[in-house]
Amino acid sequence: LAPAHPVVITLTTDFGSNDHLVAAMKGVILKINPDVQIVDITHNVGPYDILDAALTLSQCYKYFPSRTIHLVVIDPGVGTQRRPLLVSGETNYFIAPDNGVLSPIYEKEERLTVRHITAEHYFHSPISNTFHGRDIFAPCAAWLAKNSAPSSFGSEITDFVRFAMPKAKVTGNMVKGVVLKVDNFGNLVTNITAEEVPQLLSTAAQFKITVAAKDGQKEVLKFVTTYAQGAQGEPIALIGSGGCLEICIAKSSAQRAIGVTRGAEVTVLFG
Amino acid sequence: LAPAHPVVITLTTDFGSNDHLVAAMKGVILKINPDVQIVDITHNVGPYDILDAALTLSQCYKYFPSRTIHLVVIDPGVGTQRRPLLVSGETNYFIAPDNGVLSPIYEKEERLTVRHITAEHYFHSPISNTFHGRDIFAPCAAWLAKNSAPSSFGSEITDFVRFAMPKAKVTGNMVKGVVLKVDNFGNLVTNITAEEVPQLLSTAAQFKITVAAKDGQKEVLKFVTTYAQGAQGEPIALIGSGGCLEICIAKSSAQRAIGVTRGAEVTVLFG
Amino acid sequence: LAPAHPVVITLTTDFGSNDHLVAAMKGVILKINPDVQIVDITHNVGPYDILDAALTLSQCYKYFPSRTIHLVVIDPGVGTQRRPLLVSGETNYFIAPDNGVLSPIYEKEERLTVRHITAEHYFHSPISNTFHGRDIFAPCAAWLAKNSAPSSFGSEITDFVRFAMPKAKVTGNMVKGVVLKVDNFGNLVTNITAEEVPQLLSTAAQFKITVAAKDGQKEVLKFVTTYAQGAQGEPIALIGSGGCLEICIAKSSAQRAIGVTRGAEVTVLFG
Repeated sequence: LAPAHPVVITLTTDFGSNDHLVAAMKGVILKINPDVQIVDITHNVGPYDILDAALTLSQCYKYFPSRTIHLVVIDPGVGTQRRPLLVSGETNYFIAPDNGVLSPIYEKEERLTVRHITAEHYFHSPISNTFHGRDIFAPCAAWLAKNSAPSSFGSEITDFVRFAMPKAKVTGNMVKGVVLKVDNFGNLVTNITAEEVPQLLSTAAQFKITVAAKDGQKEVLKFVTTYAQGAQGEPIALIGSGGCLEICIAKSSAQRAIGVTRGAEVTVLFG
Repeated sequence: LAPAHPVVITLTTDFGSNDHLVAAMKGVILKINPDVQIVDITHNVGPYDILDAALTLSQCYKYFPSRTIHLVVIDPGVGTQRRPLLVSGETNYFIAPDNGVLSPIYEKEERLTVRHITAEHYFHSPISNTFHGRDIFAPCAAWLAKNSAPSSFGSEITDFVRFAMPKAKVTGNMVKGVVLKVDNFGNLVTNITAEEVPQLLSTAAQFKITVAAKDGQKEVLKFVTTYAQGAQGEPIALIGSGGCLEICIAKSSAQRAIGVTRGAEVTVLFG
Repeated sequence: LAPAHPVVITLTTDFGSNDHLVAAMKGVILKINPDVQIVDITHNVGPYDILDAALTLSQCYKYFPSRTIHLVVIDPGVGTQRRPLLVSGETNYFIAPDNGVLSPIYEKEERLTVRHITAEHYFHSPISNTFHGRDIFAPCAAWLAKNSAPSSFGSEITDFVRFAMPKAKVTGNMVKGVVLKVDNFGNLVTNITAEEVPQLLSTAAQFKITVAAKDGQKEVLKFVTTYAQGAQGEPIALIGSGGCLEICIAKSSAQRAIGVTRGAEVTVLFG
């Protein structure tokens, strides 16, 4: 049974946008299945940066239609024994190398089936040793979008690679986390979530936030609900659209002003 | 009545291409309306740079099919009282925050209806305070593309925010303008247009162009019709494809050679 | 006869992704032919860099479905006498200025028809002197995708511009080539191919590779089959997915470590 609407295939890679690599993958997909809708999530994941790719995908995959196939190619182990995976989640599919890049998906999805892709008849031939994005992952996504059964790609496995996402730690009236990502505006997105630290949402709560910058501790004293609420140059904190605590400066870059990068420690002290 | 062809939704944002933000908007659109064709205009507008976004959109929207929906999310006031707008132009639609980013559209379109979007049943739920691109603007575009009537989104308003685009000034035989944009080739695109200064198109006219560079006035003495007509390293002027006077250097960057950036003053002296 | 599936039009330009230029071309295409599928190959070709564009396209065009139209706009001679071309290859079409940017296509395709596009009724009107991507190339691609006969665009020519791609030279037990491209990972992609130097594929062969870096000759002694096989910081060589010899460093940038850029000489000594 063909789907009534074009199936969406999303792409997340560290290939950048200067080379032919992404286009080769898209060509392979469209040759097999010209009716899909391809959406770029990003190709600017830092080279080999599995954590960054994992975070980016985990922030947006839920917004796509059911049956969307999320193709992730951050693949430093290409050509080695690392396995190609097809993961069936609650409503979406994921195709990626077995290197942990789907860890947040394993965490967030209630029901999951993880398969080791072995069905070589779906692959592009010949298979290079260095570009499985083009030769294995892209063609599998295209065939899956054509309504091939997930079970036809390989057997279920349970020993897939999975790493623990860095979590904030709550101890008494203190929460310790890190800057997970600096966004395009210079906002510092942390791993401290309102879900885990519900006090952050309480208007009655009083707290002080400290960021470990290169040149010492920086304090953030104002907690707001929108980016526009800070005075010029004043560091503010808010819960961003992904549910995480962010350190920001209205109409400016907190990264530049505070002088921190990814990994910087962030502490919230309540009361 | 469903349209015979996929409706186009264009996206113009300052979200960059490293983060999940653009993808989240696209997912939301495709979940509501899987049959649209999404076209990126640019996501590299400078952060909060309303003027740059306004200029970029105004240079290309007319080339799109009728019924195209132009979605613009440069939104420093997200979460505050600034209103979301749906603008019906002569043949296209525009969805954007009410912060002046559509000013050139208001100027160019003869007939316009501007509506304050208030119909919350079109919104993504829950609505975050910090990402209306995903929660308000994108879903409204998707529903409009699905043939919802513009009037169903909210009431007409006339007090929308509108700023005057920087215009060149003609005084006697002198025209004063500014560099509005430096393009990817380093060409300096000014706000001096052939429409307003028709002498620029006269082959008989003689004129001298001066650019206020960081290290003094630079003269441009050669007026040509194509980029290839200048000698190596020689500054040339021409009317670009958008109708504006441009200062260029054949196969090189006028920005680098002349040492100016956006906002630099440009003077044309006739006779 | 309309095609059963959307025709693909690919875009390769040096327009970057900050300006309105690419979007204007896409608008023109979709206004004429709303049913095509547009795929960006890259818009980050260096300004006027015909060789880079030629290489990028030549590495990926074969992966696209038959009837794909590859639109290439690297056009320093726009508005001059340089001709617009429509090239019919074995299964794909190419539309580009006649400046040599299709040279590798002329080399790789067995059967080719090259036409000088002169049918002005296909053009966007008025035609600017400075943006034929929008006014000539894009509309011709859209009309061709609509099933216009290639012969209706203009007459066949044989004196099209063609340059020799830089080839490796084999002399006795030595091969001399150059770095043609540095990819997003910092891998140095050379013009030494396994096709021309089959010894590279022999596991029995012994060889030493030398790269002319800025600060002297650098040796590469390890020949591997996957990027992951090198020790930390160790330069390795392999045959990449395009069939070319590449100099790499596992999970790091060979460009940065070795200190070379495009054009650097690479020597392979056998035995």
